Amino acid sequence: MSRLRVLAFSISLDGFGAGPGQDLEHPLGVGGPELFEWLFPTRTFQEMHGSGGGETGVDDEVAARGFENIGAWILGRNMFGPVRGPWPDESWRGWWGEEPPYHVPVFVLTRHPRAPLAMKGGTVFHFVTEGIEAALARARAAAGDRDVRLGGGVATIRQYLQARLVDELHLAISPVLLGQGEHLLGGLDLRALGYACTRHIAGSRAAAHVFLEKRQG
Amino acid sequence: MSRLRVLAFSISLDGFGAGPGQDLEHPLGVGGPELFEWLFPTRTFQEMHGSGGGETGVDDEVAARGFENIGAWILGRNMFGPVRGPWPDESWRGWWGEEPPYHVPVFVLTRHPRAPLAMKGGTVFHFVTEGIEAALARARAAAGDRDVRLGGGVATIRQYLQARLVDELHLAISPVLLGQGEHLLGGLDLRALGYACTRHIAGSRAAAHVFLEKRQG
Repeated sequence: MSRLRVLAFSISLDGFGAGPGQDLEHPLGVGGPELFEWLFPTRTFQEMHGSGGGETGVDDEVAARGFENIGAWILGRNMFGPVRGPWPDESWRGWWGEEPPYHVPVFVLTRHPRAPLAMKGGTVFHFVTEGIEAALARARAAAGDRDVRLGGGVATIRQYLQARLVDELHLAISPVLLGQGEHLLGGLDLRALGYACTRHIAGSRAAAHVFLEKRQG
Repeated sequence: MSRLRVLAFSISLDGFGAGPGQDLEHPLGVGGPELFEWLFPTRTFQEMHGSGGGETGVDDEVAARGFENIGAWILGRNMFGPVRGPWPDESWRGWWGEEPPYHVPVFVLTRHPRAPLAMKGGTVFHFVTEGIEAALARARAAAGDRDVRLGGGVATIRQYLQARLVDELHLAISPVLLGQGEHLLGGLDLRALGYACTRHIAGSRAAAHVFLEKRQG
């Protein structure tokens, strides 16, 4: 069965996965972009969002691997956009412009129904109102024998971890202190939930990349 | 003036600096020894506590640097021993046997007075009942132009951080999940307290070594 994977998810040295005060001007929260200073210069990121070029090396390799063999994504609603409550209209089409970097079906968790939204390049946003297990079932069906990537944000990853539905969690530890924000692991006992660190590699700009996996059984 | 430094202090990926349930059988808390799996095999540790030999490399270098130019230590009482409340007698002489690895004056924070305790090899334990600032003043006076190392534990480091008295904090991030225990940075806004990450290096067994410094002013 396809695996549910969190890949290249950035946390600060003090454990935050996003800064405080997320809104339209601060999609990653205040200070949040510092979490991604390891990622922005990579060739993978630059090819997707920038002008091309970019750095190769460990950070780029792990960023690139995050897009390999992925047949569907799951995102929390706040990762899709800053709109809260019922959708006022269909004008919000994601943070990424007309051609988002997913190129596969993306399942967005929300309590408010909305018709699917097909974008350029193969990305189709599906809005799932039936909860995290339903979203995972639909994403797996869409992914076929490929894996499902859980993109975030923090609250969504925490829900899936608590339910022991995440198979693999790759964290990029950024060499920054945020001080405040959304803490990824606070109050979650990952060890009791069956997770263990199976591998770690040094980053270039990232302090380290660590790989957690759910033990079988 | 000599600097107050936390050096080679181990935290887990989920931010714990000690396991839960510290007692005589578990001086590092349950699961706590896993935090030090990067340290135990180093030549520095093996020469101090073991049979000699041991590994060289990055982890050993940072462990060794933790003992360079240190003129005094400060320890919380729980790092000195498992005894709580008034000292029943003078029989507890630390976790380290008759020749502790400090070889300089060590200032132990406690609310309960006790006469100084001179050990083999130059270590003298002084018991300070007047609080963290008094302990720092006495340690600085003893250290002269060398630095003061704050050994821990977690609660003691948190007190000194909160008071902005720590000049430098080197954390060794261990590739383990503890799930429970004493969280080093939870609820502390290190960024607001004036700290920033100035450097990071890859560990060998440690996932990374990160160096935080207090900004001037």
